[in-house]
Amino acid sequence: MQAASPTSQENCVVVIGVGLIGGSIAAALKRRVPSCRVIGIGRSETRLRQAQTAGLIDEWATIIDRVSVPPGCLVVVCLPVDQIASAVRELADCISSESVITDAGSVKSFLYRELADDSAALAAFVGSHPIAGSDQNGWEHASADLFADRICVVTPETSSDDNVRRVSDFWKSLGSHVRIMSADEHDRMLAATSHLPHLMATATTLCVETDQLAYTGTGFRDTTRIAAGSPQVWTPILCGNSEHIVEAIRDAERILGQLRCAVQSADTETVQRLLLSAATRRGQLRNGSGS
Amino acid sequence: MQAASPTSQENCVVVIGVGLIGGSIAAALKRRVPSCRVIGIGRSETRLRQAQTAGLIDEWATIIDRVSVPPGCLVVVCLPVDQIASAVRELADCISSESVITDAGSVKSFLYRELADDSAALAAFVGSHPIAGSDQNGWEHASADLFADRICVVTPETSSDDNVRRVSDFWKSLGSHVRIMSADEHDRMLAATSHLPHLMATATTLCVETDQLAYTGTGFRDTTRIAAGSPQVWTPILCGNSEHIVEAIRDAERILGQLRCAVQSADTETVQRLLLSAATRRGQLRNGSGS
Repeated sequence: MQAASPTSQENCVVVIGVGLIGGSIAAALKRRVPSCRVIGIGRSETRLRQAQTAGLIDEWATIIDRVSVPPGCLVVVCLPVDQIASAVRELADCISSESVITDAGSVKSFLYRELADDSAALAAFVGSHPIAGSDQNGWEHASADLFADRICVVTPETSSDDNVRRVSDFWKSLGSHVRIMSADEHDRMLAATSHLPHLMATATTLCVETDQLAYTGTGFRDTTRIAAGSPQVWTPILCGNSEHIVEAIRDAERILGQLRCAVQSADTETVQRLLLSAATRRGQLRNGSGS
Repeated sequence: MQAASPTSQENCVVVIGVGLIGGSIAAALKRRVPSCRVIGIGRSETRLRQAQTAGLIDEWATIIDRVSVPPGCLVVVCLPVDQIASAVRELADCISSESVITDAGSVKSFLYRELADDSAALAAFVGSHPIAGSDQNGWEHASADLFADRICVVTPETSSDDNVRRVSDFWKSLGSHVRIMSADEHDRMLAATSHLPHLMATATTLCVETDQLAYTGTGFRDTTRIAAGSPQVWTPILCGNSEHIVEAIRDAERILGQLRCAVQSADTETVQRLLLSAATRRGQLRNGSGS
């Protein structure tokens, strides 16, 4: 058996948005690529200064320019999905040709559509989506292991093979398993695996009145936990992937309709068959490669 | 402030079905009402003997009769919901008039309908539903604190006030907060708070193909955890509460339809309003009385 070939490592990484994801990237770099210079760009001087004092970032800035983004660096935009495209445009205006830009957002085609008229941005940008997260916000909750052994999807689309390889190597250096796919493939998949669950948790929550909440158990609590997530973060995700999400909701409505008809007509065989099919699939997650 | 008046305690409790719930009732009695004699009735001699050796039950039997169910005892039927009515009928045939029967099932009207022609059973039976549970099965995972500070719904319906008080006191002695309501009220509430979440988790799981499971994150995992539950346990629950469940599914379909239309028409205001409404309600669970 041959050892995995060592991947190239970045000398300088700029993180735009030093929150939970950006902070975890910084923490992972400090742990795994200690020689890498990590620059944080954000809005709040106070917060950035604290992150520097905490040893998460080496330098910081509050604006994107030729000074804050050194030549040849790799830039990761860790902003809410509706703010990524404008940051990528700004970056494309000031980076050197040896730099590459990526992101960590959970919708992709939308981004490429927003960048469609900016050839410099399209050439420098390789989309990424690390499938990892947390309930918590802010770099205080950052974890150097957030991306370890998790999948990161990389979407080549408009950039060079070299840039795609470089971005893939970057995520591998943080411990992730990289999967290459098209932006559309990614978005269709994530509509089912991430965006629909958020909507199902939302609908489940809205079916329970406030005065009924005391009568919920652990099942309801788990099933609806993500519905407490930020509407400001989720609205642009959902509206940014509308086509695939509409299809995913239709799928869910179709299955709920089957369950409703089976329950209504006391068709226990169909109810049990659907429950068994879901229990079997969910069971694979605990034992299989996806766990 | 006046101290809560002490509730009467049982001298002898018979648990029919010594699994997670039955075992936890036995464990809670051993901890909180140490003078109480606890008798377990089940199918497997081996398992019952082990539960006795583990100190969970004092005595055991594999059949329901005048010997295994002593005069004056309180009997709790902890069987799957489709097996409760026949156990209650059997019990009603052999218990003394000083005995009372309750259960721990999550559907109630169905049970009373099944017992409708058995006046002895109806007189002796007071329905209960402790809103507590676990992913795990078997008395090995029993917890003496499973019912502590959890709500237990008691449905009087056809039994005497004395029996209702006695069953309520029993759950209070295990640390539960008792709420009295009609079987129909209970079933309508639980359709929303427990049965619908199971169906939503089932539908969410079935919208993800097996080869997409690797691309799921913690959100999907939490939202679908209960879909791995036993179809044998859940099919009778769902079909036993069909009327209210059909209504609950319709509610969920209506909300999903609203979300689908809003996403499709890029109506970000409506998407955000619905997400915010769910996030606010779910937030109450963490901070409010229901948590």
